[in-house]
Amino acid sequence: MIRRYTMAVLLAAALACVLATPRPAWAEEGMWTFDNFPREAVRSRYGVSIGQDWLDRVRRATVRLEGGCSASIVSPSGLVLTNEHCVRDCLQRLSTPSRDIAGAGFLAAGRAGEERCAAEQASILERIENVSAAVQAAVGDGVGPAANERRKAALTRLEQACEDDWRRRGDPHSCEAVTLYGGGQYFLYHYRRYVDLRLVFAPEADIAFFGGDLDNFRFPRWDLDFALLRLYVDGRPAPTPGYLRWRRAGAAPGEAVFVAGHPGSTQRLQTLAQLRFEREYVLGHWLLRAAELRGRYLQFSASGAEQARSAESELFSLENVLKVRRNQMAVLLDHGFMAARERDEQALRAAVAADPRLKPAADAWAEIDRALAGYRAFYDRYLFLERGAALQGELGAAARLLVRAAVERAKPNEQRQREFSDAALPRLRQQLLAPQPAYPAFEALRLGFSLEKLVEYLGVDDPAVRLALGREAPQQLAARLVRETRLGDPAFREQLWNGGLAAVEAADDPLLALALRLEPEASALRRRHDDQVEAPIRAAEERLARARFAIHGTRSYPDATFTLRLSYGAVQGWREGDHDVAPFTRLDGLYARATGQPPFRLPPRWLQAQSRVNLDTPFNFATSNDIIGGNSGSPIIDAGGRLVGLIFDGNLHSIGGDYGYDPALNRAVAVHPAVMLLALREIYGADALLRELGIE
Amino acid sequence: MIRRYTMAVLLAAALACVLATPRPAWAEEGMWTFDNFPREAVRSRYGVSIGQDWLDRVRRATVRLEGGCSASIVSPSGLVLTNEHCVRDCLQRLSTPSRDIAGAGFLAAGRAGEERCAAEQASILERIENVSAAVQAAVGDGVGPAANERRKAALTRLEQACEDDWRRRGDPHSCEAVTLYGGGQYFLYHYRRYVDLRLVFAPEADIAFFGGDLDNFRFPRWDLDFALLRLYVDGRPAPTPGYLRWRRAGAAPGEAVFVAGHPGSTQRLQTLAQLRFEREYVLGHWLLRAAELRGRYLQFSASGAEQARSAESELFSLENVLKVRRNQMAVLLDHGFMAARERDEQALRAAVAADPRLKPAADAWAEIDRALAGYRAFYDRYLFLERGAALQGELGAAARLLVRAAVERAKPNEQRQREFSDAALPRLRQQLLAPQPAYPAFEALRLGFSLEKLVEYLGVDDPAVRLALGREAPQQLAARLVRETRLGDPAFREQLWNGGLAAVEAADDPLLALALRLEPEASALRRRHDDQVEAPIRAAEERLARARFAIHGTRSYPDATFTLRLSYGAVQGWREGDHDVAPFTRLDGLYARATGQPPFRLPPRWLQAQSRVNLDTPFNFATSNDIIGGNSGSPIIDAGGRLVGLIFDGNLHSIGGDYGYDPALNRAVAVHPAVMLLALREIYGADALLRELGIE
Repeated sequence: MIRRYTMAVLLAAALACVLATPRPAWAEEGMWTFDNFPREAVRSRYGVSIGQDWLDRVRRATVRLEGGCSASIVSPSGLVLTNEHCVRDCLQRLSTPSRDIAGAGFLAAGRAGEERCAAEQASILERIENVSAAVQAAVGDGVGPAANERRKAALTRLEQACEDDWRRRGDPHSCEAVTLYGGGQYFLYHYRRYVDLRLVFAPEADIAFFGGDLDNFRFPRWDLDFALLRLYVDGRPAPTPGYLRWRRAGAAPGEAVFVAGHPGSTQRLQTLAQLRFEREYVLGHWLLRAAELRGRYLQFSASGAEQARSAESELFSLENVLKVRRNQMAVLLDHGFMAARERDEQALRAAVAADPRLKPAADAWAEIDRALAGYRAFYDRYLFLERGAALQGELGAAARLLVRAAVERAKPNEQRQREFSDAALPRLRQQLLAPQPAYPAFEALRLGFSLEKLVEYLGVDDPAVRLALGREAPQQLAARLVRETRLGDPAFREQLWNGGLAAVEAADDPLLALALRLEPEASALRRRHDDQVEAPIRAAEERLARARFAIHGTRSYPDATFTLRLSYGAVQGWREGDHDVAPFTRLDGLYARATGQPPFRLPPRWLQAQSRVNLDTPFNFATSNDIIGGNSGSPIIDAGGRLVGLIFDGNLHSIGGDYGYDPALNRAVAVHPAVMLLALREIYGADALLRELGIE
Repeated sequence: MIRRYTMAVLLAAALACVLATPRPAWAEEGMWTFDNFPREAVRSRYGVSIGQDWLDRVRRATVRLEGGCSASIVSPSGLVLTNEHCVRDCLQRLSTPSRDIAGAGFLAAGRAGEERCAAEQASILERIENVSAAVQAAVGDGVGPAANERRKAALTRLEQACEDDWRRRGDPHSCEAVTLYGGGQYFLYHYRRYVDLRLVFAPEADIAFFGGDLDNFRFPRWDLDFALLRLYVDGRPAPTPGYLRWRRAGAAPGEAVFVAGHPGSTQRLQTLAQLRFEREYVLGHWLLRAAELRGRYLQFSASGAEQARSAESELFSLENVLKVRRNQMAVLLDHGFMAARERDEQALRAAVAADPRLKPAADAWAEIDRALAGYRAFYDRYLFLERGAALQGELGAAARLLVRAAVERAKPNEQRQREFSDAALPRLRQQLLAPQPAYPAFEALRLGFSLEKLVEYLGVDDPAVRLALGREAPQQLAARLVRETRLGDPAFREQLWNGGLAAVEAADDPLLALALRLEPEASALRRRHDDQVEAPIRAAEERLARARFAIHGTRSYPDATFTLRLSYGAVQGWREGDHDVAPFTRLDGLYARATGQPPFRLPPRWLQAQSRVNLDTPFNFATSNDIIGGNSGSPIIDAGGRLVGLIFDGNLHSIGGDYGYDPALNRAVAVHPAVMLLALREIYGADALLRELGIE
């Protein structure tokens, strides 16, 4: 499936390339904001009109799951449709050795049986406020580290004022600053946030992810990758009048369809130097570490059922991201792709050189080159010590978060690192304090692996490595830390969170002590990164964005930023090599593909139903919408505003969507409404849910 | 350590790039043949004269270990010095659960206690015969697949005639055709071959590979990576009067030193298209598979002592090759390196375009591009089905070898694939029939992994995948095959080898049956590769080589081909970033680095000796000689013909030596004679060996 969008993983996002497109978009290309949707292009291409009312209804029915997915409201009582793979983490947290709902699926016995996903939050965008003038006034004309800090402080201040304002009105909202179009434009997004989400339905893992990693990002496909959650407020189902109705028959081939959701991140406008840095320093090394870890997870899983269960969720994410990044690397190694980008860049350079008004952009490339050359010297240290690569796993992450949060929360709000602003804290706290299953052997594997890689990348003789390891070997140290730490206990974590730096420093916990020992260098690396990499690159990118605007005008969309977007396209297959790929699969294909062995094993219920279900039922389908990770769980909506599908994946070509959209090849992949409704009725007997969805 | 040269692994070698250098070599650059050694350059740079007598003596004392290493003769009774890592395979074969000589080392109790390394052969080059005229007469003027086949048939015929001739004279030799300088020149190398090699001495693994993978390819370093074998003929130690004498004090800083040995393969003259193919199709994918396999090996090893022992030798090789290829990939991703190669290529193209005599080379680049474009379409199939990636492990390799050898041996010698010519068969047979320890769980891991990757790379729906797997999952099938096959039994393998195709087809063995099922497509892929890739690229490379000769003359050396070469250089450190790396380490540094934990754990004998040994003893040292994998075990020799060191590694920069030599950074790394002699005397009490080495 397309990945959940995970901020911490995407280093590229840390280089924050949020720019306008360099040229008018291709037909179908674009992840558009709701206030700049190309209605005219849609009308002329598909003959359908998208009105403001349609846009408002769809916006109100589209949900962001803060874990990194999209979703939609599908009943008046807070029922939310998303992907099964978007609730995997919740399924695993709710599973126990005697109750394997992560494998066997879940159907709540009435509302009282709906179980809380303790780490999850959901948001619905209610208002977009342009704050560009306020930000620019605060930043002033300066450049460099100080201006960069003024900008970040202004964003934090604006968020705080916004939330204070809502709170005064007795209707708390979350406010997030959003930077679009290369920093030329700043917005406050006002969200209604839900912190009580409960699991209603999920199918068996074998049918949700039929074909497993082998079929992932492939099409034809047969994945029943859907699940239902419910939003609760004050212990009761949230009233959600603006829900989407289902169009049971789905959309016809060639019909215009729209995807609303929260695409996580794209890098369609990086300079050549940034792309080369990405492939030389970022992707290649990440892939090697991830592939090795995959081998460890698989071998660990093979050693027993409990091991397999404890590794399952992480293995699943890892294999998914591996496939994504492997194909991104393939794009960046493709000589044709890079040569085309080189021509684009040369054309832009020539245009800038030819127009005196664009002079400020002329040295932007050289500034980016210089910043990246400096970054090379400490990229690995930054990655391991500040970005967490040295302390992987739930326990290591908790230790780092507790230490850093304690340090940052001791500062005034505006002076903190942005991810620890008051606006961001509630979600961090909820994540940190949510109970987790205890998998000590698996935790030791993850922590040991990351300490091994710390030694491998920074070298045995590095002072930070010595500080971390002393004279212990990585696996030995990891086993001891996991055995001795108390961070697995949510009550202990809460006590440390509430107690701040004093509590963290006083705690006699060896894992926390390790994170504390590494904190001074980690913080220093963060400062160095922000001042020497983020600040100059962001400033250079802003100037490039302005030059592009001046040349190409405003017929463009911003790069994805895990904020609400709308894309248009059609139900459509593609031509792969020498054959056509049809846009629909049917239920009969599922049975033909089943072998009885994972990952092609069907749940017993599905095997038993084979003789009585309609085998012509459409199952999965492909569309030409421009999507990316974060769009998982996005509704597909027709021109009449009805639900006609559920995004869960893209084809292999779509992975290149990080860097560009190819209308001939990029395809989104979705679950068809007919098979979801068939499953609820004929396989799972979920009649009450069907009634709630308005299906007789 | 620099890797052993493994023909089967090096796909690059299959593209057989055996060309002359494009420009006069840098000082120190070059892996020279003994008949074209740049004596004048050495004299003018170092003031030392290398005479023909010196060259003849060194040639006769230099040994090729057919497992992929170099070595030297160090006593009149067949004693051979090489690296411990070159005898790892033998140590593991001789180990049992109750006798862990792979870990604990080995010192034969007198000659009667020397134990045979059953799979090993050694060769000493006795004569080089230029057969260019005969080959060219046989090939004629044609190009394309038919000419390619005529060329190969001619080489096989020449080898056969040569061996027949020696046999008639009652003094059997091995004759191997060698292609140098881009196919413009063909040679027969006449070797005296030894098939009975016995283990005399190896130190503990902890001191031979102190620092393990972490310190591998690093310097400063403290590895006692040496071992002693003995050549036997007719059950008696081979008389070897032309042995090397030791210079106990080693060479001085800056002194000229020479490395004789068998560098395996370099690709210093590939076209840009070939380098891009390498990084896009070959290296990147290989690295991902190898990293995942490394993770599996490490996790498997962590599950118990017997598991660790069974995986140890493979893990060791895998990590070494991983480091090599990872750094090769780094070179190919380095924009500066690729830009320089692009400039070189453009310069050569311009020179060719400007000179009518060079016209034949003008379309060589386009022909290589075309061949590689075609190769892309079946590279993965070729790799998995023909190059063995689908059936890894000892048992899978035996199945493939038995099937293919049976098919090929049924043909006349000249029509066979070259690796099954009569000249090549004795070594194949010896390798196949050597007893191996039985590690069924580890074999199942390797076979299961390769079947998993077969499915992943070719896809679930591929006919060959279905033919291989039926409806079984890869790990399930692998476990069953390993359980049911009899190929672990050397007697069964011998019976199949002797029985030929009829015996192979009649054998009721599921693993052999699998290899037989895949054989038709594997053979077809080989034909396609040879006709569509090998033939046109070889023809184009020959034309490029001739153009380079015409432009640059003959002051050049051929790319490495695992044949005898000599390089010159000096004992010398280098400048790394902002500091100097000194050329020598001393014994005291070993003790300072020891932590008691692997890979920095010292054997008890060494710990006990700390107070009585001379801690100033030189340990490892660096030289500027141009080396590459296959040079492992090479003697370092001074201008007086005395042994002053033993190559076992290069620094990280030296890995780039595959693609080019940088005199400022590339360094070879060696064991100092003083520490080897100290170890034999003071740690291992090997007084008889010391006397045999001529040391009092």
